[in-house]
Amino acid sequence: MQVVITGGAGFLGVRLARTLLAGGRLSLAGAAPTPITRLTLVDRAMPPADLMADARVVALTGDLNALLEGKEAVAPVVTEDTAIVFHLAAAVSGECEADFDLGMRSNLDATRALLDACRALQTCPTVVFASSLAVFGNSPEQPLPQTIEDDTLPTPQNSYGIQKFIGEQLVADYTRKGFIRGRNVRLMTVSVRPGMPNGAASSFLSGMIREPLAGIRASCPVAPDTAVALASPGRTVEGLLRAAQTSDADWGPRTALNLPAIKTTVGEMAAALARVAGTVATDLIDWVPDPAIAAIVTRWPANIRATRAAGLGLLPDQDFESIIRDYVRENPYAVKLGISP
Amino acid sequence: MQVVITGGAGFLGVRLARTLLAGGRLSLAGAAPTPITRLTLVDRAMPPADLMADARVVALTGDLNALLEGKEAVAPVVTEDTAIVFHLAAAVSGECEADFDLGMRSNLDATRALLDACRALQTCPTVVFASSLAVFGNSPEQPLPQTIEDDTLPTPQNSYGIQKFIGEQLVADYTRKGFIRGRNVRLMTVSVRPGMPNGAASSFLSGMIREPLAGIRASCPVAPDTAVALASPGRTVEGLLRAAQTSDADWGPRTALNLPAIKTTVGEMAAALARVAGTVATDLIDWVPDPAIAAIVTRWPANIRATRAAGLGLLPDQDFESIIRDYVRENPYAVKLGISP
Repeated sequence: MQVVITGGAGFLGVRLARTLLAGGRLSLAGAAPTPITRLTLVDRAMPPADLMADARVVALTGDLNALLEGKEAVAPVVTEDTAIVFHLAAAVSGECEADFDLGMRSNLDATRALLDACRALQTCPTVVFASSLAVFGNSPEQPLPQTIEDDTLPTPQNSYGIQKFIGEQLVADYTRKGFIRGRNVRLMTVSVRPGMPNGAASSFLSGMIREPLAGIRASCPVAPDTAVALASPGRTVEGLLRAAQTSDADWGPRTALNLPAIKTTVGEMAAALARVAGTVATDLIDWVPDPAIAAIVTRWPANIRATRAAGLGLLPDQDFESIIRDYVRENPYAVKLGISP
Repeated sequence: MQVVITGGAGFLGVRLARTLLAGGRLSLAGAAPTPITRLTLVDRAMPPADLMADARVVALTGDLNALLEGKEAVAPVVTEDTAIVFHLAAAVSGECEADFDLGMRSNLDATRALLDACRALQTCPTVVFASSLAVFGNSPEQPLPQTIEDDTLPTPQNSYGIQKFIGEQLVADYTRKGFIRGRNVRLMTVSVRPGMPNGAASSFLSGMIREPLAGIRASCPVAPDTAVALASPGRTVEGLLRAAQTSDADWGPRTALNLPAIKTTVGEMAAALARVAGTVATDLIDWVPDPAIAAIVTRWPANIRATRAAGLGLLPDQDFESIIRDYVRENPYAVKLGISP
């Protein structure tokens, strides 16, 4: 079985790739598990060395739009033997808000081109589309309901959310037409994300934990009482895999499935960090308001009821402290502070 | 004030144009009424002679995508003095289901190109986007709620509905960004539509009345108990105009507003026709099932609660019999049968 991950050198793509390679086999839509013979990681960046050392891994490096347009003199993104595509590549929320055309191109045009490439195969490959909590947005004219359900009307309040929601619609219709077997999965804000800060408005929700643990200062641009819906990288990858594995009947409608999340606040996140690493860690957080980031993040909902996900056995993390402890265990080289047991 | 209507030679476009020209002035978003100095009708077909005879009317004839791409050696679709665009042009539901690429090009690409042309003006023109009841679709995996509200999650079950729903998202985000002042309006199935049958799956919902009134046979491809949500051409044009006229505050959220509709059944429509024109009319209806059309039409909802529209004073027609009588009065040359008073 050949597997493709767009955004395959990103932190979720890398984690998904490692999980797939470690398992060695994948069951698609309820079918029997099949060995993974090739794993193509499509990204602007090169995947890390451990992945490149695996004989099953092929890196396809370049701009996704250009690759799909065939402008790069490399192999096509999907081929006749592609059984599944995890489409994780995207311009992030802050970038899309700052550069409208970049977002339209990276998120809308690239997604459509990828779906058209899959359709052209005439093999109906599985496509797991990473949509986002950002499809939900609160506004004075249209307040969000108290709790977000799978069938709550998305009212995106930023371009990234609009583009992800449009992607869901395309995936649904290409699926209905039999061009692909699509799975629309809404990812929650993932924390703690390893690596470097990025242009996502939610970037600080990892940075305010990750940087202090590494002994360096971090900014928190919103007030401590800001409520957020979070999921760990592990639970997020579990959700992507479950979407691929679940049969059509168990998956249900073509509309998107909300992944589970815990509700917490930025202040509670800092308190959990203090319990894990002491005030030496939380003293490294600078509470510096940033209206541009707050305008995006405070419009996302925090109460998510992930009913469909629960029906597939997907549950939220235990609490944010356990998420921090997972991060510390999984990223020992990124942690410089002493950790209380 | 310069006004643009795409699909300006279609039956709604023509009716809207005549209404605008007769009024002579238009109030935009709560501002004072302004004289309409130019009305540009963009369509593949030429508008009727009465419109062309009006000195204020300019016809821009050609493929909308080609016109927007600047490939046709004619004037641009929108210009700096364009105050408002009514975007009615679309490939219809049956066409989009039969030819996926045609639908994507005519409905998605053309809408986006039109919005980009408006954005490029940097004048924030008003854009009234004619979305559709077809964004709502019933399916075994995801049954529609009993009643459709303005905030019911659309789950389109045909490509036309998906493309219209994507158009709503684009209009919402271009509005949020300040590129346009957008108004998303969901039109109900319009009946009785004058003119010829077309490729819309709903075409028979006019044809089964219009053709018998003209003394010619018509097919009804669904069972008499099929429930439908209908609005007259007059009420539909009223809704489009109200969308343009209403202030931002009164209009409310950027999500789409459902126009009002009456709920009836195809059998009740035939019964109303019999009351107006006798069984000599209904004897001309051939009840010949067409599974392809039934698959689309029977998935549309019939119970529409148009709360936002009601708040703007937009009410449904009285009943279907009154809709037929309106048609008879407005289209005397298309009626050959005797009509009971």
